[in-house]
Amino acid sequence: MSTPHPAGPELDGVHPAWLPQEAFRAIGSRRTLVRGDGVLADTVRAEVAYACALHGGVLLTDPEKPHDLALTVGGAPHAGEEGFVLARADGVTSVTAGGPAGLLYGLFEVVRRGEAAFGADLPAGTHRPALPRRMLDHWDNVDVHPVMGQVERGYAGGSIFWRDGEPRADLSRVRTYGRLLAACGINAVAVNNVNVHATEERLLTDRLGEVAAIAAELRPYGVRVHLSVSFASPVTLGGLGTADPLDDGVRAWWARTTERVYATVPDFGGYVVKADSEGRPGPFAYGRDHADGANVLADALAPFGGVVHWRAFVYDHRQDWRDRSTDRARAAHDHFAPLDGRFRDNAIVQVKYGPIDFQPREPVSPVIAAVPRTRLAVELQVTQEYTGQQKHVCYLAPMWREVLGFRLWGPEGRSVADVATGGGLVAVSNVGDDPYWTGHPLAQANLYAFGRLAWAPELDPAAVLDEWIGLTFPSAAGGPLRRALHDIMDGSWRTYERYTAPLGVGFMVRPGHHYGPDVDGYEYTPWGTYHFADRDGVGVDRTRATGTGFTGQYPLPWSEVYESLDTCPDELLLFFHHVPYGHVLSDGTTVIQHIYDTHFSGAEEAAAMRATWEKAAAADITGEPGVPVGLHARVRELLDEQVRSAREWRDQVNAYFFRKSGVPDAHGRPLH
Amino acid sequence: MSTPHPAGPELDGVHPAWLPQEAFRAIGSRRTLVRGDGVLADTVRAEVAYACALHGGVLLTDPEKPHDLALTVGGAPHAGEEGFVLARADGVTSVTAGGPAGLLYGLFEVVRRGEAAFGADLPAGTHRPALPRRMLDHWDNVDVHPVMGQVERGYAGGSIFWRDGEPRADLSRVRTYGRLLAACGINAVAVNNVNVHATEERLLTDRLGEVAAIAAELRPYGVRVHLSVSFASPVTLGGLGTADPLDDGVRAWWARTTERVYATVPDFGGYVVKADSEGRPGPFAYGRDHADGANVLADALAPFGGVVHWRAFVYDHRQDWRDRSTDRARAAHDHFAPLDGRFRDNAIVQVKYGPIDFQPREPVSPVIAAVPRTRLAVELQVTQEYTGQQKHVCYLAPMWREVLGFRLWGPEGRSVADVATGGGLVAVSNVGDDPYWTGHPLAQANLYAFGRLAWAPELDPAAVLDEWIGLTFPSAAGGPLRRALHDIMDGSWRTYERYTAPLGVGFMVRPGHHYGPDVDGYEYTPWGTYHFADRDGVGVDRTRATGTGFTGQYPLPWSEVYESLDTCPDELLLFFHHVPYGHVLSDGTTVIQHIYDTHFSGAEEAAAMRATWEKAAAADITGEPGVPVGLHARVRELLDEQVRSAREWRDQVNAYFFRKSGVPDAHGRPLH
Repeated sequence: MSTPHPAGPELDGVHPAWLPQEAFRAIGSRRTLVRGDGVLADTVRAEVAYACALHGGVLLTDPEKPHDLALTVGGAPHAGEEGFVLARADGVTSVTAGGPAGLLYGLFEVVRRGEAAFGADLPAGTHRPALPRRMLDHWDNVDVHPVMGQVERGYAGGSIFWRDGEPRADLSRVRTYGRLLAACGINAVAVNNVNVHATEERLLTDRLGEVAAIAAELRPYGVRVHLSVSFASPVTLGGLGTADPLDDGVRAWWARTTERVYATVPDFGGYVVKADSEGRPGPFAYGRDHADGANVLADALAPFGGVVHWRAFVYDHRQDWRDRSTDRARAAHDHFAPLDGRFRDNAIVQVKYGPIDFQPREPVSPVIAAVPRTRLAVELQVTQEYTGQQKHVCYLAPMWREVLGFRLWGPEGRSVADVATGGGLVAVSNVGDDPYWTGHPLAQANLYAFGRLAWAPELDPAAVLDEWIGLTFPSAAGGPLRRALHDIMDGSWRTYERYTAPLGVGFMVRPGHHYGPDVDGYEYTPWGTYHFADRDGVGVDRTRATGTGFTGQYPLPWSEVYESLDTCPDELLLFFHHVPYGHVLSDGTTVIQHIYDTHFSGAEEAAAMRATWEKAAAADITGEPGVPVGLHARVRELLDEQVRSAREWRDQVNAYFFRKSGVPDAHGRPLH
Repeated sequence: MSTPHPAGPELDGVHPAWLPQEAFRAIGSRRTLVRGDGVLADTVRAEVAYACALHGGVLLTDPEKPHDLALTVGGAPHAGEEGFVLARADGVTSVTAGGPAGLLYGLFEVVRRGEAAFGADLPAGTHRPALPRRMLDHWDNVDVHPVMGQVERGYAGGSIFWRDGEPRADLSRVRTYGRLLAACGINAVAVNNVNVHATEERLLTDRLGEVAAIAAELRPYGVRVHLSVSFASPVTLGGLGTADPLDDGVRAWWARTTERVYATVPDFGGYVVKADSEGRPGPFAYGRDHADGANVLADALAPFGGVVHWRAFVYDHRQDWRDRSTDRARAAHDHFAPLDGRFRDNAIVQVKYGPIDFQPREPVSPVIAAVPRTRLAVELQVTQEYTGQQKHVCYLAPMWREVLGFRLWGPEGRSVADVATGGGLVAVSNVGDDPYWTGHPLAQANLYAFGRLAWAPELDPAAVLDEWIGLTFPSAAGGPLRRALHDIMDGSWRTYERYTAPLGVGFMVRPGHHYGPDVDGYEYTPWGTYHFADRDGVGVDRTRATGTGFTGQYPLPWSEVYESLDTCPDELLLFFHHVPYGHVLSDGTTVIQHIYDTHFSGAEEAAAMRATWEKAAAADITGEPGVPVGLHARVRELLDEQVRSAREWRDQVNAYFFRKSGVPDAHGRPLH
């Protein structure tokens, strides 16, 4: 029996995130029996052995010996390959897994429960993931991109895979990363940026060994590797004269190339493609549509069980801002709805959760309801491009929960999570080579929560937050630090929403880097993201009656709900309607007063977060269990920046609308 | 007698600018006598010899032989070292120079006049430069700066001095550059960026050889080399614990270091310093003022006849946009006026022409009138940072002429050019390694005109333009191309002004790169450049009565002229006053209608420029003398961009003010 030592826990200078040694105390102090074969069962054995070494327990192989915990592969076929049955009876806790991956997830479920897993009897409960693929897309580059750097939209240092054009010599951190992912339920990683530049293209061919090396580190934790590829590869790598997806030579090239990939990485997951999007090559160049494009890759992958994730993020990024009839929000539906039924079974259309681009508040994308005969994955953004760039605390799980639970055809209909069972849930990763993994230490919670919600979309985000706090700060159990963390993080997304762009209108960020306020930053650009504020009102008219007709892309009841000013939810008002500043919201305040109120309160809430954190520090000093000094200082420094930035947002947004509307604040607060 | 071959005329692939072979036809076809010794007289001999080789004339040394042109050093002491007396009598044209440099400038005056120099008799006229130092500041970096590139605010390719961290192996282009400079009267070049980064600091010490190599190329054309240095050099290069200008060790370090500079470059010009400005180190860190700072360098340079150019561009670039009492326009005067009389004789305070930063329209800086006991240089910007970035045709000489001729104390008082006789005229260079030197071929005219106006500030910019056209396009003499060039260029600065920020308010450019419109781009930033537009009006109140008091920094009559809405010139209205959109200008239109009108007409004028250029092309086709095909195509392509950009400016500025003011265009033109 091989028992590879888990690579991660003691990586020098790297924060253990939600798997500190203390998290293994309950398991590691008991007698545990592990039964099963293969690399994943070996991983489980090694994890238990390591926990026992730390905490004095025993790893058993003889089932006849008395034990507290039994982890067994087989005997629960209904749980599926990744699922397990958890029970406790007669003083023994048992995990009976449908397959080796289930054993791994069962182990981490017991870790999560800690002592509670060894308390009262527990009737047998089946646990299995709601979504088949729970995936992170890394926007890592091999070369340092002159504008985007080593990791596009990365706010946590360099890449854990590459550095300055070369693969990292020591990939032990990748192994540790896989362990963290397994512990929150993630089973797939696309290793490179969807904007595939020249060097990165070659990961598909002569640099494939680098992908294989990453796969080798992630395999023991059940994480499969995917690769972003360029649609133009047959030309740029293959030397063909065309990348036309209906060309026989192109089809043969993809088939041959993919065969070589699987010869090197037998459990390779598949391709991710951004095509005809923000300048990337795609099938339009050959007069083909996106089903043609996706299918040529799907056909190449099919013999090996691979999938292609084909992004629906297709729009005209050279729009004329003067032309109010063109609506970027419509683009994905316009392009993809007509193609429903034309995609192969192993082609997954990957749709951003909202119709624009990862804003703090958007309606759910109408594409999700529009392609019932297509396997569909929903894409979230764990990296905080538009939500504070890992300088601001912004716990995103409450937003994701709203999205996943959104019922696409009204209260009785299926939810986004239901529809995504065909393809899965994908998110852009927020991880880099930062000592805390995510830049802001508290941004770890977003990565953790993403995995948990992908496994079980019905989870309460506040409960997931408490899970994360409990694992990550075990010494703070029940104390004021734990309450402080909960208070700071639980409402932080809504706080962020309050001090940034109002009522769903989006953007108002500095062009390019997207950090900090610039109300008109995108207003006169070709990017299709406008607010149309004038001296009388603000918002985008996307109604059928008088606007772009975007509301008509939704099924009932939402097409009607969004169409009408009377029923459109306030938080999306300016996404769907252009209204006068005096328009009265459901709580009786006017739009202009709402802008002032939310921006004052949002900035105040940011200041309160900092005050709460300072008090948590005091707890440390007075002898209560606290957080490490370095982590405390990092968070405090970042909260200083958040408070500064939130005030800047407040003052700029309020000044902008005051200067336009001329309406003073009802409470006489200063406007500039 | 050494006769170095002029390096320039036939550089492969480099446009000859205003010194094509044809420009030497009049001299080169005659018998010319040259008398004088030294490197500059040798240059003149070599130039004449080369011209004669091209056009069949003869270079004589025997004064007894019959000749058409005599160039002689000596015999005109009143003309000064750089001056000369030009006359024609008895069939002989004579240049009698006060010194060797005068011989060189006399030669190029004859080149400029061409056949006219050999026509009718000419009474003896003395020519000498109005300003002693006529200088270009290169903002070239040695290393490619990650943000600013090889040349900061450079729009003409790389540096002619450095490339990717190394000096260029072949400096023949620098020699050619010196020849062009001498031909328009420029006699000094600061070789490196005033933002002196780590590598560039070392040009003062261990990389001094690179400065010497450049000096060797420029010396034959009478151009002395200056160096931008960091005020922190005693710390960063010298290893001292301080750069305090009153510290004896610091004084000794500068003295020692400067002595070594002169040992290597005996005719070294001096230092240029940007201190306490936009993050550069300076004397404030030690509680010293800028006279202390400048004087320590001046003292080090004095024994060798060098000067320090100390920039007055000192302001708070971390201003709070909410605080309307702080006014960046005041900063240079606030800092420097109290120091008048405290600077050494060889310390030159270098003042940007306007109080803000090289905008297309600013009032003249009040500092120029405020330091009568200080040697003062005026700084212009030939590189078109804020005037179209060498993508737009924008002939700047009319603006410079207005600035230089501005009478600081009213109609009877001295002009800016009069005051600048103490220090000289300086400009940021627009030259790079582009085949046309300046990116836009027509931007060469700005470089030429700068030199000419620095020599003779009273020149008519339109006449200088015609000079440049005649030299640069000799085959087009008198034809439609010449008229087309004049029509396109002569009014191009006012055209640019019309379609960009209105009525002197400035900025409204995209932050960072400063190209293209962004009305609010700087409105909520720390940079101190605001327009304060709201739904009622626009402009900056800089009056004493109700504003920042900036008008009080001017002497009479300007302090009163600018203070009053009745007398403030329209073109500076929004620089000095915040007015309602309905405010009526001197021509009877309102401010808002003026904004619409100028932006429509400015964009139309840009389109007309392109049409004129197209017709000039037709002239080429129909057999008239035209311009080279490559140059024609380059200009056409750039005019396309100018037309596009001018329309974008028009539509964004008009849309912005329409949305704010709600006032429709009186002529019913579309506003967005």
